[in-house]
Amino acid sequence: SETELHEVKSEIVEIITNHHSAIKSSRDFHPEDTIIKTPHSVIGGQHFTLMAGPDSIESPAHVEAMGKAVKAAGATVLRGGAFKPRTSPYSFQGNGEAGLKAHRAAADALEMDMVTEILDTRDVDLVDSYTDIFQVGTRNMQNFALLKALGKKQKPVVLKRGMSATIDDLLNAAEYIAAGGNDQIILMERGIRTYDNKYTRNTLDVSAIPVLQSLTHYPIVADASHAAGVSKFVTPLALAAVAAGAQGLMTEIHDDPAHAFVDGAQALTPDEFKLLADKIRQIREAIK
Amino acid sequence: SETELHEVKSEIVEIITNHHSAIKSSRDFHPEDTIIKTPHSVIGGQHFTLMAGPDSIESPAHVEAMGKAVKAAGATVLRGGAFKPRTSPYSFQGNGEAGLKAHRAAADALEMDMVTEILDTRDVDLVDSYTDIFQVGTRNMQNFALLKALGKKQKPVVLKRGMSATIDDLLNAAEYIAAGGNDQIILMERGIRTYDNKYTRNTLDVSAIPVLQSLTHYPIVADASHAAGVSKFVTPLALAAVAAGAQGLMTEIHDDPAHAFVDGAQALTPDEFKLLADKIRQIREAIK
Amino acid sequence: SETELHEVKSEIVEIITNHHSAIKSSRDFHPEDTIIKTPHSVIGGQHFTLMAGPDSIESPAHVEAMGKAVKAAGATVLRGGAFKPRTSPYSFQGNGEAGLKAHRAAADALEMDMVTEILDTRDVDLVDSYTDIFQVGTRNMQNFALLKALGKKQKPVVLKRGMSATIDDLLNAAEYIAAGGNDQIILMERGIRTYDNKYTRNTLDVSAIPVLQSLTHYPIVADASHAAGVSKFVTPLALAAVAAGAQGLMTEIHDDPAHAFVDGAQALTPDEFKLLADKIRQIREAIK
Amino acid sequence: SETELHEVKSEIVEIITNHHSAIKSSRDFHPEDTIIKTPHSVIGGQHFTLMAGPDSIESPAHVEAMGKAVKAAGATVLRGGAFKPRTSPYSFQGNGEAGLKAHRAAADALEMDMVTEILDTRDVDLVDSYTDIFQVGTRNMQNFALLKALGKKQKPVVLKRGMSATIDDLLNAAEYIAAGGNDQIILMERGIRTYDNKYTRNTLDVSAIPVLQSLTHYPIVADASHAAGVSKFVTPLALAAVAAGAQGLMTEIHDDPAHAFVDGAQALTPDEFKLLADKIRQIREAIK
Repeated sequence: SETELHEVKSEIVEIITNHHSAIKSSRDFHPEDTIIKTPHSVIGGQHFTLMAGPDSIESPAHVEAMGKAVKAAGATVLRGGAFKPRTSPYSFQGNGEAGLKAHRAAADALEMDMVTEILDTRDVDLVDSYTDIFQVGTRNMQNFALLKALGKKQKPVVLKRGMSATIDDLLNAAEYIAAGGNDQIILMERGIRTYDNKYTRNTLDVSAIPVLQSLTHYPIVADASHAAGVSKFVTPLALAAVAAGAQGLMTEIHDDPAHAFVDGAQALTPDEFKLLADKIRQIREAIK
Repeated sequence: SETELHEVKSEIVEIITNHHSAIKSSRDFHPEDTIIKTPHSVIGGQHFTLMAGPDSIESPAHVEAMGKAVKAAGATVLRGGAFKPRTSPYSFQGNGEAGLKAHRAAADALEMDMVTEILDTRDVDLVDSYTDIFQVGTRNMQNFALLKALGKKQKPVVLKRGMSATIDDLLNAAEYIAAGGNDQIILMERGIRTYDNKYTRNTLDVSAIPVLQSLTHYPIVADASHAAGVSKFVTPLALAAVAAGAQGLMTEIHDDPAHAFVDGAQALTPDEFKLLADKIRQIREAIK
Repeated sequence: SETELHEVKSEIVEIITNHHSAIKSSRDFHPEDTIIKTPHSVIGGQHFTLMAGPDSIESPAHVEAMGKAVKAAGATVLRGGAFKPRTSPYSFQGNGEAGLKAHRAAADALEMDMVTEILDTRDVDLVDSYTDIFQVGTRNMQNFALLKALGKKQKPVVLKRGMSATIDDLLNAAEYIAAGGNDQIILMERGIRTYDNKYTRNTLDVSAIPVLQSLTHYPIVADASHAAGVSKFVTPLALAAVAAGAQGLMTEIHDDPAHAFVDGAQALTPDEFKLLADKIRQIREAIK
Repeated sequence: SETELHEVKSEIVEIITNHHSAIKSSRDFHPEDTIIKTPHSVIGGQHFTLMAGPDSIESPAHVEAMGKAVKAAGATVLRGGAFKPRTSPYSFQGNGEAGLKAHRAAADALEMDMVTEILDTRDVDLVDSYTDIFQVGTRNMQNFALLKALGKKQKPVVLKRGMSATIDDLLNAAEYIAAGGNDQIILMERGIRTYDNKYTRNTLDVSAIPVLQSLTHYPIVADASHAAGVSKFVTPLALAAVAAGAQGLMTEIHDDPAHAFVDGAQALTPDEFKLLADKIRQIREAIK
């Protein structure tokens, strides 16, 4: 009947526009949590991992000072960008290989893991020679050439959800990496684009955390800094993500936010970060 | 002065995009938190209020049993719908005045406050003769005739954020009530409509909680049930809202979700609600 | 199997969150187009109806002058608001019954149909005593009490799509009117809320026009004024809607936009409207 | 001056929300339309360019047959994908260099321009050795490494709007290409992601067409195929885009949609394309 035809058609559209083909990423085929071990961290399962540092690597001294502060608060992964994906071509694009070097040196000195963003397939080997963990940013979540290249590496990849990626899109993107042979994947909710961005930069989708945990075995972490966009909202959003079950948190910090090279408005100070880290531990205890 | 600067900035924002005209609702003109006192609850400020009950009033015995269960877990407000705003005209529309009666009787027997939804300006006096707290649902957030009518009443109003209402839209809607002379307003984040609703019914916008608290003095509460749409995600979303600073939580419960008249899929059982209430108390402690 | 269970669950969510229950509104059960006849217009099918006028009724002389101008350009329906749903309570709320009177007088003098917005169930009989066509605005698309009340009237209803209503939501809302016994329904696409409203007030969803025409037999018309928000984009959006198959167009005009009581920024001048009407006729010819 | 006022306003917008830093792309600094000349087409200004072909290059014979059909209907640019960005890693990824070869041969034989998508910075020289026009897909609109690489080439680039890119994001992305020295840019609206994708794959944002034409001098074209997602809605959306002022249209065609390698559901048949092309010419005439 026409009604049946109409229903079949709707289902086809559903299949075409909105599905995931996760196999390696699916909890159906891999029920237990994936646990990722890096030199200084254990990520996933019942573990909680703090990843923090400056938005961009500004200087060797600065990244080391920031690393020292976040380590003192419990972070084991030192974040920082050497290649920055900026909306405008006229904004600071990062310090490139010099940034990678300074970042590596700080991580070594502090016995922390290094995580940094990769923007270009041509830079994969270069970045690989420095970093412990690759990061794929929101704008490159469906840069399939990059995902394929990282699928051939044997290092963990933090894959940030695209600004308007569905849960299924994110799982499919993870599957690109997994299909290549790399199952060291960390998924990151970082805020999505909605109709209201007047007071926050993005809308942190906390529901993505338990939803993803029901669908996939990979660790699910959150980035509250980019979701908030302004520092005064970073702490409540971070705590919300932890309460929703996030297995880790990435946060940007800066000792002088007003003069940060990039995104100073959303950076916590080292003191604010320490307070946040303390509250996180209590919330982790509360939701056990 | 800072207030002037803030006004100038607000005006610029208003000109360019959307805007809010909150005066009575604005923290600029009323810095301290509004505290609302009902017969059995204190709402706002440092207080935390649990509001729970069935989606719809199914029978006198059922609403009383549900009320007993949620009161035991710490709820002081008994929710329940007698007039149900259903997407389809062929869905159950609520038990009307018989529902109001049963709801009132249960609240009285249990010494709890009653909150129920109002859909029609013609029903304001009828509902007023039964309830302690009015609720305006997401579909009526900009039903200005209804807001004006409630502005003339002297009972608290729970105003739910519209499905795609901006923060400013919500403040303006509150201002309609306040402008009429009723300043007993409770704002509720209940999930917004975004591009992805495959796994949850809506997207709980936890950032709305601290953002609203920075802009207005009214209590900010959350409804995790309608945001989740499926019961297994209600608890993590509720905890996230509390961690973000919500001053109260509304949740739907049912002892036999599979046979609930409305929205059984998102109802917690009384046991699940008790566990949630315990965790909420711990999180409240953690974020102090 | 678990996979099957997962699929079934996804389908249930789909059914719950996103479906239409259109029966009377469905083309499956009423394949031929509904044609609506008012005193001065024939709406639907192969007909095209121009509805235009000021945003709000400002004075008897003004509405008549505007009506004269739009009639000369081919409009048969004179629009104008006496009850205005304004985002802020402090904005002009319309001239009420005085506005209705002036509107009726102008429509009679010009032999045009009158269409005006209704905001409150308590005003249904009042408005009914003046108007030829009721209009339900975007904020009241799911004001089910109002839809039910209009379902008992025997006059056409222009039902505007909610700002973030799905196609199914709109069909369900129409079904509320139809279920009451009133099948004189005109559906209006008027722009939806998306993530980008910097340059236009809303996003005109032209695809809704052919999609709705495939699903329902009611006339589908468009409002380009509220979608654009600024007059210079009204004409291209209006032409797009016509090219996509709209069976009518509603447009706001004003002879002195800078001093319009409401929404002057999006009003066309009478001369601009005449040019638009001419182009519409040519596009209607082109797509035959 | 007006330009100064415009700049001040732009700066305020930038501070409050998002912003664009378009300089080379801005009409403020380059008032007249950019006209792009390729071997067989003139794109921009008062010209209208039809770009059509199969979604993916399936075989030498097939792309030539499709090219012949679209050329007969007035197309001067032959589209086709050799590198396909598929949501799932298990979907067909395109025929790679063999596809490029077949595409080039067909374009040469038919005296048409070739346009094909580029996914990877490592493929820029390879693709450059075959194509007349580069295409950057929606998922790579903010793949800044790729944009920079194309900024150093001297061939036109069709830059598709990202699925949830704002107008400003798109202008900033174009500026990345322009900043590198390549001002041969064609911007393409192809549908955005909104809250409703049940009946169409995306929401064609026709307002983007006149908005972009007011802000930039580059040609603005539309892709109705990906916006619709189903072939029966391609024609009304394409006509809407033309009526809104699009300076060109890209459409996917297939002689046997049910067996197309990719996206058959949205392909027009050659006959449907011919009818569309005829109507486009009439609409172009109507809106002159």
